[in-house]
Amino acid sequence: MGGFFDRLRQAARARRTLLCVNLDPDPDRIAGGAGAALRHCAWVIEGTADHVCCYKPNAAFWEQYGADGWKALIELRQLVPDDVPILLDAKRGDIGSTMRAYARALFDVVGADAITVNPYLGTDALEVLTACTDRGVYVVCRSSNPGARDLQHLDAGGRPLYLQVARMADRLNQAGNVGLVVAATAPEDMAKVRAESTLPFLIPGVGVQGGDLERSVRAAWNGDEGSCLIAVGRSVLYADDPAREAAALKAAIGSVLATV
Amino acid sequence: MGGFFDRLRQAARARRTLLCVNLDPDPDRIAGGAGAALRHCAWVIEGTADHVCCYKPNAAFWEQYGADGWKALIELRQLVPDDVPILLDAKRGDIGSTMRAYARALFDVVGADAITVNPYLGTDALEVLTACTDRGVYVVCRSSNPGARDLQHLDAGGRPLYLQVARMADRLNQAGNVGLVVAATAPEDMAKVRAESTLPFLIPGVGVQGGDLERSVRAAWNGDEGSCLIAVGRSVLYADDPAREAAALKAAIGSVLATV
Repeated sequence: MGGFFDRLRQAARARRTLLCVNLDPDPDRIAGGAGAALRHCAWVIEGTADHVCCYKPNAAFWEQYGADGWKALIELRQLVPDDVPILLDAKRGDIGSTMRAYARALFDVVGADAITVNPYLGTDALEVLTACTDRGVYVVCRSSNPGARDLQHLDAGGRPLYLQVARMADRLNQAGNVGLVVAATAPEDMAKVRAESTLPFLIPGVGVQGGDLERSVRAAWNGDEGSCLIAVGRSVLYADDPAREAAALKAAIGSVLATV
Repeated sequence: MGGFFDRLRQAARARRTLLCVNLDPDPDRIAGGAGAALRHCAWVIEGTADHVCCYKPNAAFWEQYGADGWKALIELRQLVPDDVPILLDAKRGDIGSTMRAYARALFDVVGADAITVNPYLGTDALEVLTACTDRGVYVVCRSSNPGARDLQHLDAGGRPLYLQVARMADRLNQAGNVGLVVAATAPEDMAKVRAESTLPFLIPGVGVQGGDLERSVRAAWNGDEGSCLIAVGRSVLYADDPAREAAALKAAIGSVLATV
């Protein structure tokens, strides 16, 4: 099936978009359990599929429905067009033997084309996943929340920890299947990561979290269609018209790209 | 229901043990899917309940069975005696809004008394969980795998990152419901953490991973029954006689304690 980033680039090229829509159902907004959550996401996918190159469900939002949610998460794959990859935002990170179980759960059972992972446990933990060369692995580097400063910005051996993580991810990228999560809420940090790394970025934090779309695209884009995947969640998922909202975001990204 | 650590201490006192048994079913060793995994764990729990003060399922091992695994994980709570807490080893870490979904999934749906979390996303991510004051939160500090050295041992502001994490966890401990994961594979690092922190330790790495039980107990124990929770996995779960194996480990911990 080729590599994840090739599939992502193909979808981005075919649909002329860098937009990723999060599929994170909130039971407080969608009444009716996991079934209703799945139906809502089906409606959002149907409306937005022409404007996105990736969908990103976050595991947490499905796990809160228990076994039904896990079943729905598995069914989600069937609702997404075949040529659009699914990125499971799971931020897993554990010792090697446990990561083998996660690879089975998230790649084989859920059928995710790519997942997000947490770097804190180090190289051997992540190598279990990067060894699955047909799948993608995005390493959390600089997160979108205020607490990102607590550890990620500590001076670690002469540079901020998040840049050490970028370096570690570069070393893990033997098969060309590693990317970085770098938040739109800190475009100046993103520029520092881009100055040192050619890895593809997944960029959360645009929309409700207040990240800067224009500065982020300028900081991340390096001419590679995989370099700048803009993930947007609640502002599309709960829009009155998700299709219109996604089209507007796609266009906004396009107008920045036209000037870089 | 009181705090998690009070329940853990009560169980430790009542059963005179510091042993925690991992419930991490491996489909390569247990044929028959999630149902068989649950039955195997039921048999292990029945044999070992007098020798342990906590059971620790790791989410990954249940997720690999898909929706059936998630259902079995929820049923697991019913198989454990009421007065023995369940610690879900999940190592979650995400932004606040996502952590609220994880709190619902892991505390409310699975019914975990405590969970493990990853510190990389910082304070605000973890505060969502520590705000659940009747539950426990163990922050991964120094993990048991070789890759622990990649980031956790970087010099971060004049001290190894894992000691910065211990300090962050101390600040999070407003409700007395925070502990640290510190591995038995590095008892010298554990001693450094104990020199700075009075938080309860969860200690993985004894058994198949080759951690040092005696040195770990000496490094971790501070007179508090919650201070030194020794987690053992495969060597009990796949023993011919799990009860005998758990009794032997309980006795081994007891003989170290008798000399400290």
